[in-house]
Amino acid sequence: MKSFRVSVHIVPRKGLLDPQGKAVADALHTLGFGAVGDVHVGRHLVIETAAADAAAAETSVREMCARLLANPVTEDYEIAGVIAV
Amino acid sequence: MKSFRVSVHIVPRKGLLDPQGKAVADALHTLGFGAVGDVHVGRHLVIETAAADAAAAETSVREMCARLLANPVTEDYEIAGVIAV
Repeated sequence: MKSFRVSVHIVPRKGLLDPQGKAVADALHTLGFGAVGDVHVGRHLVIETAAADAAAAETSVREMCARLLANPVTEDYEIAGVIAV
Repeated sequence: MKSFRVSVHIVPRKGLLDPQGKAVADALHTLGFGAVGDVHVGRHLVIETAAADAAAAETSVREMCARLLANPVTEDYEIAGVIAV
């Protein structure tokens, strides 16, 4: 078993309302960043886990996302990276 | 002016308590993911902005992080990627 650090992005599903992103975009406009268009706010998780290899670590984290970390109705997740530590 | 999509990670500063990460790690252990070690939870922002080039887009987003998006006392930010759209 080796140790891996897996990064995950959990973002609101495309087409769903993202009120937090809208609030950030409005605040940036107010601050003078007029060039800003859409903003999307999601979560960035870094999970350290032991696994036989990188593929097993990724599979395990996908299962964590499906069972706990992401809301399947409103959110999508993607594995951003798997590095051995 | 071209359009760029800039990804930013905002994470709790190293060494600071990350109660949300601790809660996620505990929940994963309860669900049977015993191999999980530390978990860190941060924010993942995707900002669409117009700029002359990729370097200008990155500079502009760094200023947004410093002025609004990240808490300089408790959080670090990093530009994860800049892509033209």
